[in-house]
Amino acid sequence: MSNEPVPGYNLGDESIPSAPISMEEFDRLKQTVMFTEEDEEQLRKASEILGPQVEEVVDVWYDFVADHDFLLHYYSTPDGEPIDDYLYRVRKRFEQWIRDTCNTPYDEDWLNYQFEIGRRHREKKNETDDVDAVQVIDLRYVIGFIYPITATVRDFLDDGEHSADEVDAMYHAWFKAVVLQVMLWSYPYVKDDDW
Amino acid sequence: MSNEPVPGYNLGDESIPSAPISMEEFDRLKQTVMFTEEDEEQLRKASEILGPQVEEVVDVWYDFVADHDFLLHYYSTPDGEPIDDYLYRVRKRFEQWIRDTCNTPYDEDWLNYQFEIGRRHREKKNETDDVDAVQVIDLRYVIGFIYPITATVRDFLDDGEHSADEVDAMYHAWFKAVVLQVMLWSYPYVKDDDW
Repeated sequence: MSNEPVPGYNLGDESIPSAPISMEEFDRLKQTVMFTEEDEEQLRKASEILGPQVEEVVDVWYDFVADHDFLLHYYSTPDGEPIDDYLYRVRKRFEQWIRDTCNTPYDEDWLNYQFEIGRRHREKKNETDDVDAVQVIDLRYVIGFIYPITATVRDFLDDGEHSADEVDAMYHAWFKAVVLQVMLWSYPYVKDDDW
Repeated sequence: MSNEPVPGYNLGDESIPSAPISMEEFDRLKQTVMFTEEDEEQLRKASEILGPQVEEVVDVWYDFVADHDFLLHYYSTPDGEPIDDYLYRVRKRFEQWIRDTCNTPYDEDWLNYQFEIGRRHREKKNETDDVDAVQVIDLRYVIGFIYPITATVRDFLDDGEHSADEVDAMYHAWFKAVVLQVMLWSYPYVKDDDW
């Protein structure tokens, strides 16, 4: 199932521009969220638990969005009509994003793609899916999503086969990875190079 | 001790401009991080535990900053000299910020002050303390700090007198409150009103 192509998800594609930062700067960002090789290991462990559950995880996130008009707004036309096909395509990318957050080396391709994801929240939003949705996911909501995206994952990680300490280690690796990505996704929003 | 004046910390002062958002929009931001009245209650509980430990909490954060040149940079002159007096004054505000995150009503004064804190990370940085430090705390590091500022607090909350579930409830309220504030602090950084 995870081998089906995901609409518009093209990590590693040669059309993706290079990241505007060096791997050294990327390393500083990792240090800021205390992200180490141990966390990469924990995420690979997490991928075995989350992988088979990605649809259920995204269900929880989509239910949360659907419960709040001001969040559903970003998946809707400027007139306020939710766009089903867009919601479906983003959902499939969200699922792949969970897999890639857990089980992809954080190498240059991965880094380049984070900046692509950032652009798709702003100047390239709608382009991938050729839809007429609102133009930008406002930055405050991109940042705000750190909480639900992180907190809701802990229950999925707690599969009854790992101790609380083991679940915590995976959960913290996930938390760090989410914050790290939001740091990168904020890039196209800043003025005056204050990123 | 908490009654000593904190240098440059003036929540509630009439010189603080009004927030650029309504209380209705503020409520939407709270909903995005799942912040409820129950969390305000948990934070008041947390304040009893963290209040007497604020110096130790900030010690941990400062040790983390001091261990990373690229973070200490923001408390240094453009030539790279850390500014002791500035570090001291910011430290005292950090301590007060912990108290106010836990034990201040999230009312209009509080909201107004979050935008002031945002400005002090950017166009008003250095002004409060009249120092010649680097001009801006780059947004990626403001966002990145969500992780250490959140994760390190859990151990302080775990005072041996509360169950793991009780500590978790306080920890999650803290986590939400930190993300909520970073959402607000990002305001002065965005271009094209894409906040």
